[in-house]
Amino acid sequence: MNNLVFQEKEFVKSARVTMAIEEVLESYSSPFQKVEVYKTVPFGKMLVLDDVVMLTEYDNFAYHEMIAHVPMIVHSNPKKVLVVGGGDGGVLKEVLKHPSVEEVVVCEIDEEVVKVSKKHFPELASSFDDSRATFIAQDAAEYIKTKKNYFDVACVDSTDPIGPGEVLFTKEFYQNLEQALTEDGVVTTQSESMYYHRDVIASWYQRNDKIFKHAAYYFTVIPTYPSGTIGFSFCSKKYDAFENINTQRISSLKNLKYYNEAIHKASFQLPQFMKEKLQGQNKEIGAAVHAKNMEATSF
Amino acid sequence: MNNLVFQEKEFVKSARVTMAIEEVLESYSSPFQKVEVYKTVPFGKMLVLDDVVMLTEYDNFAYHEMIAHVPMIVHSNPKKVLVVGGGDGGVLKEVLKHPSVEEVVVCEIDEEVVKVSKKHFPELASSFDDSRATFIAQDAAEYIKTKKNYFDVACVDSTDPIGPGEVLFTKEFYQNLEQALTEDGVVTTQSESMYYHRDVIASWYQRNDKIFKHAAYYFTVIPTYPSGTIGFSFCSKKYDAFENINTQRISSLKNLKYYNEAIHKASFQLPQFMKEKLQGQNKEIGAAVHAKNMEATSF
Repeated sequence: MNNLVFQEKEFVKSARVTMAIEEVLESYSSPFQKVEVYKTVPFGKMLVLDDVVMLTEYDNFAYHEMIAHVPMIVHSNPKKVLVVGGGDGGVLKEVLKHPSVEEVVVCEIDEEVVKVSKKHFPELASSFDDSRATFIAQDAAEYIKTKKNYFDVACVDSTDPIGPGEVLFTKEFYQNLEQALTEDGVVTTQSESMYYHRDVIASWYQRNDKIFKHAAYYFTVIPTYPSGTIGFSFCSKKYDAFENINTQRISSLKNLKYYNEAIHKASFQLPQFMKEKLQGQNKEIGAAVHAKNMEATSF
Repeated sequence: MNNLVFQEKEFVKSARVTMAIEEVLESYSSPFQKVEVYKTVPFGKMLVLDDVVMLTEYDNFAYHEMIAHVPMIVHSNPKKVLVVGGGDGGVLKEVLKHPSVEEVVVCEIDEEVVKVSKKHFPELASSFDDSRATFIAQDAAEYIKTKKNYFDVACVDSTDPIGPGEVLFTKEFYQNLEQALTEDGVVTTQSESMYYHRDVIASWYQRNDKIFKHAAYYFTVIPTYPSGTIGFSFCSKKYDAFENINTQRISSLKNLKYYNEAIHKASFQLPQFMKEKLQGQNKEIGAAVHAKNMEATSF
C-alpha cells in the first residue's frame, strides 16, 4: 500500500474528498489555473483544476449526462448547442449523441484543459474530432455577447464561482445568455451542492426565475464531488423541465449510464429542506452553528 | 485552525470521508464494538462505531427520514413497528411522528449505543422516553424468531455487513422477518451505496424478490456516508412502493427536512447503471479496473 493521498482543498470548510493516489501524471500552471492529473487508486484518472476535482474516469458520467441530456431532451429539436467551459470534452460527447445536432460550440477560456484531456481522457476529448464541434478559446462572458437568437441549448460546465469561473455566475452573463438563445432556448448550468451552498443556489434560482420563463434546480449523485451531489440550474424560455420528454428520442441515445426518462423527472424532486429554501424559507438542517460552518465558503 | 482530522477506515478501498475534528468526546469499547463520539468542525457531533460514521447532527435526517417514512406511508395504517439496530433513536423518532403508531420495539444488540446517544444526541434518543417505545437489548436475528404475524412495519437500521451487523443481511434473517410481519407488512433495510456495492445490492434484491411480493431499491443523498449516498432495500408483502401515498398523512408529519411526497416516488428512480444492475445486466461504470478496486470491499 502506498501512502500518496489526494486531499481536495478546503473549498467547503473542513469537509474534503480524500483518496489514495498511485501517481501524479501532470502538475503545472496554465495562464489561468493550476492543472493536475492524478492516477487515483479508486477512481482511475482524475483531472484537478486549482486543487478542485473536475472529473474522474469512474464517475464523470453522472455529471456530464445530467447537465447535457436534460436540456437536450426538453428542447424538441436542438440543432445549435453552446458548451461554456467543458474543455475536457465530456459535455460535448453527450450533446453529440443527439442526431438533431448540427453545430456545437465549446467556448473554454483555457486551451490547456483541452490539451491535457486529449492526452489523458481521450474517451471524452475525442469528441472534439467530430465535424460538428467547434472549439473557441475565449472568455465565454465575452463570446456570448456576440451571439443573438442563435443557440437552442446551452450547457454551462463551469468551475466554481471563484477564479476564472466567477464571471459565469453573474446576472449580466445570464442576461446575455438569454439573448444568445433562440426563442425556445434551454440552459443548464453547474450549480453546486444543495447541502453546502443552499444560500447561493437560492439566490441564483430567484435571479434566473426573473430572466427566464422557467427556472428550476435538479441534481445528480456523484461520489467525487463535495457532499456526493451536485446540482444544476435549469433555465428555459418556453418549455418547462417536464415538457417534450420523448421516450423514443431517449432510447436512441447510446451508452447511457445515469440518464433515463424516470431520472430526468426524479432529479427535479428536491429534499424538503431544499424545496423550502427555493421557496424562500430558511429551515436549518443542522444546528445553526454547523450550517454556518458548512456554508462559510468564499462565495 | 486545529489539526485534528477524522478519516473513516478503508471500508471502501481508498475512498474516505475526511473532516476536521474539534474534540474527541467519547472513545471506548463496548462488548460489541468500538464506540466514539467526535465534535466535528463541519457537521456538529458525530457517532462512529468500529471506525465507520453512523450519524452526524448535520445530515442524519436524510437517512432517518427516508428509512422510516417510506414504509410508514406505504403501509396504510401502521400500528406495530420494529426497529432493528437504531440504538441512537433516530429511526424511532421518525416512526413516532405517525399518529397510527401504538407500539415500537427497538431491538438493538448494543445498549451502549443507546446510552451514548442519550448523552450526546438527545434530540434523537429522547424518543426512547415515549410511552409507545420499548427497548430490547438483544441480537435481532434471535428476537425476530419469537414473533409471528406481529409487526406492520420493520426498519432495519443496521451497521454494515461485517461485525455485529452481519447476521442482519442473511437470507435466514429476511425469511424470519417476513414471518414476523403481518400479511400487509412492509420492511426497509439499510443497503449501502449504489456506487460502491452494486454487486451485493443486486444479490440482496434478487433474494428479497423471491421472499416478498414486492422488492425494490431506493436511495437518499447524505454527505457523510461513503460516496454521498446510501440506499435501502424495500420489501413488502402486499403494497408496492407507490401505493397508499397519502398527501394528508404526509402533510401531518412534523418537521420534515428530507422526506416529502415527490421525493418518496423520485427516490425509487435509479440511475441507468443501477437500474440495469438490478435487471441482471453488468455494465461497467468506469474502466473495469476501477470498478474492481471500488468494489473490493470485505463483503
